Amino acid sequence: MKSSKRSEISPFIVMEVMKAANEREAAGGDVLHLEVGQPSTSAPRGVLEAAKAALSEDRLGYTEALGIPELRARIAQHYRDYYGVTVPERRIVVTTGSSGGFLLGFIAAFDAGARVAIGEPYYPGYRNILAALDIEPVVLPAGEGSRFQPTSQSLSAAPGGLDGLLVASPANPTGTMLDGPAMQALVDHCKINQLRLIVDEIYHGITYHGPAETVLSLTDEAIVINSFSKYFSMTGWRLGWMVVPEDLLRAVECLAQNMFISAPTLSQRAGLAAFDCRDELDANVARYRVNRDLLLNELPAAGLDKLAPADGAFYIYADVRRFTNDSPDFCRRMLAEVGVAATPGIDFDATQGSGFVRFSFAGSTEDMAEAARRLKTWLS
Amino acid sequence: MKSSKRSEISPFIVMEVMKAANEREAAGGDVLHLEVGQPSTSAPRGVLEAAKAALSEDRLGYTEALGIPELRARIAQHYRDYYGVTVPERRIVVTTGSSGGFLLGFIAAFDAGARVAIGEPYYPGYRNILAALDIEPVVLPAGEGSRFQPTSQSLSAAPGGLDGLLVASPANPTGTMLDGPAMQALVDHCKINQLRLIVDEIYHGITYHGPAETVLSLTDEAIVINSFSKYFSMTGWRLGWMVVPEDLLRAVECLAQNMFISAPTLSQRAGLAAFDCRDELDANVARYRVNRDLLLNELPAAGLDKLAPADGAFYIYADVRRFTNDSPDFCRRMLAEVGVAATPGIDFDATQGSGFVRFSFAGSTEDMAEAARRLKTWLS
Repeated sequence: MKSSKRSEISPFIVMEVMKAANEREAAGGDVLHLEVGQPSTSAPRGVLEAAKAALSEDRLGYTEALGIPELRARIAQHYRDYYGVTVPERRIVVTTGSSGGFLLGFIAAFDAGARVAIGEPYYPGYRNILAALDIEPVVLPAGEGSRFQPTSQSLSAAPGGLDGLLVASPANPTGTMLDGPAMQALVDHCKINQLRLIVDEIYHGITYHGPAETVLSLTDEAIVINSFSKYFSMTGWRLGWMVVPEDLLRAVECLAQNMFISAPTLSQRAGLAAFDCRDELDANVARYRVNRDLLLNELPAAGLDKLAPADGAFYIYADVRRFTNDSPDFCRRMLAEVGVAATPGIDFDATQGSGFVRFSFAGSTEDMAEAARRLKTWLS
Repeated sequence: MKSSKRSEISPFIVMEVMKAANEREAAGGDVLHLEVGQPSTSAPRGVLEAAKAALSEDRLGYTEALGIPELRARIAQHYRDYYGVTVPERRIVVTTGSSGGFLLGFIAAFDAGARVAIGEPYYPGYRNILAALDIEPVVLPAGEGSRFQPTSQSLSAAPGGLDGLLVASPANPTGTMLDGPAMQALVDHCKINQLRLIVDEIYHGITYHGPAETVLSLTDEAIVINSFSKYFSMTGWRLGWMVVPEDLLRAVECLAQNMFISAPTLSQRAGLAAFDCRDELDANVARYRVNRDLLLNELPAAGLDKLAPADGAFYIYADVRRFTNDSPDFCRRMLAEVGVAATPGIDFDATQGSGFVRFSFAGSTEDMAEAARRLKTWLS
């Protein structure tokens, strides 16, 4: 028997980097982990305490498909407090990580055969989840001229019709953000051309030039995806949320009941406490900022001087074409020869990725400093 | 803008029953909950202790996409201990509840437009998840003559070609099981006709005439879905597993990386302990057995004497055509007049369901006894 055509998707190359890094460590070698796309911290203390309390007090059965009302209300309050935007609780859906939000949003909005634009470089899950759901990802080249983001011009230039646009701000792997006018231009383009707009805001809270604005301050018609994995440092808890436009609410509720039943109950109970842990979480961001500044200073000294502007998130996307046109080989040698693990750009960009490498600075500052030292020696 | 056609699926009617039941309780009325499809118990003590330990010791980041190796090994041991079947660890995939297993299995095995047979009555999630993934559910009438299960005859009689068959044993809503010869006949039919066989074994462990056999003792080519939600009493933890045939392993791994990243980490760590909690879990099953015997004795005395054989799970599927041909109205009145909540059959059977009601006996024995008393008065 055969597997489905739509499951023939690429594995993340970063998984193979991680495997090689783990093998090196198991064999006694040291590794500096600049390949990992998750915080090195656990959930904040308040979340851990809330989880322990819930374990003692709650039966932890299924919850409402859209999430426990207290958490939906707390997220609505977050929009008022943090962004100054009013979002009704009924439009807030608690999801099983942002992954759950993407699955629900894509199926609710798009039928098989629909065409959804993403900028290249992109988070590889976008492309692969769309393909698994029989939605065609339409890749728009996005270079440094547009901060590696799609524009209304690149949308207009896409061959064939489009049904939707998916953007992230801050983005992975580049860290770049869409500023107010750039996002407004995309919102306008989508409205005029009847494209469903999906905005990935999972790196909100981790920004270096002032807070990010939510697209919800510009429109009620976008699907917004968010997560407790990044700023809130709760990756393994598999908790996220989405904000859904009115016209998709009923579809998303029915899909959530059937496809997920509910998000993990303990994570929902504990996640409620996350919004009261800002001091600890902002200390994580302060560390990311130190790491970012260190790499932005030191990588050019190592010869890596073409870096995407790291407006937010915890990545630096480096043009390595001065050294190689084979980023997987470059990463393999960097790991084998100096123990620095990083992700080759081909995970994110099938066209240009062989000339780029993503460095994650979510780890410790000592690791970043040591990685920079080793790269200076290695590349000189 | 519009929502997708494939998201136009029915909500579970049971959700509306639960809402009405909650409203009645909020207004001060009492409700006996025979509508709920989940254990009334929490996870066993050993799981709760393991979760508390993991909260203190583990960073709870992402895990390997297929699950932590210790849990995959423990599940493999479960197959040896419980069924006497050897399943290699590499074929065991930890999932986000059985829901995650169905999504991965369906997408890995079937392209859009594929046709998958299910017996009617069915668990409504089957039909709705298949439809959301653009797979056509082909409904096979399955009456009491075949213990409400599909047969090789009903498969042969299905109009048009088929690509797969999905069965559950024990089944929801009927509780009926496929015995060895019946399952063997389905395995043979699928092999001869090149149908992908998916077997839902999530109610294993909750059976009343000896343990269930896994289809894996008959074939390595079926996809098996299982869960920690029922016997292991861990619904809100969103933890399950699947056993995948060799030819789908790579597809399932790539899909899991992209669609889920990983199952909840705390649930995986805690779930490891579940297999050592048999005494507590078997005490739950002993209670289900008492409840089952009570209802099988008392419901006929109330006039509900046509009951599906409750071989396993915690449901009794009752033919109520002596009283009504409108099971939703019957359930509405039963709740309003005597405070007994149950699920109308139309959730499970679009053809005959208006003449059936599902009673869940996962609750307390006192509630079952009181429900039987009230029904005797109400129906007389």
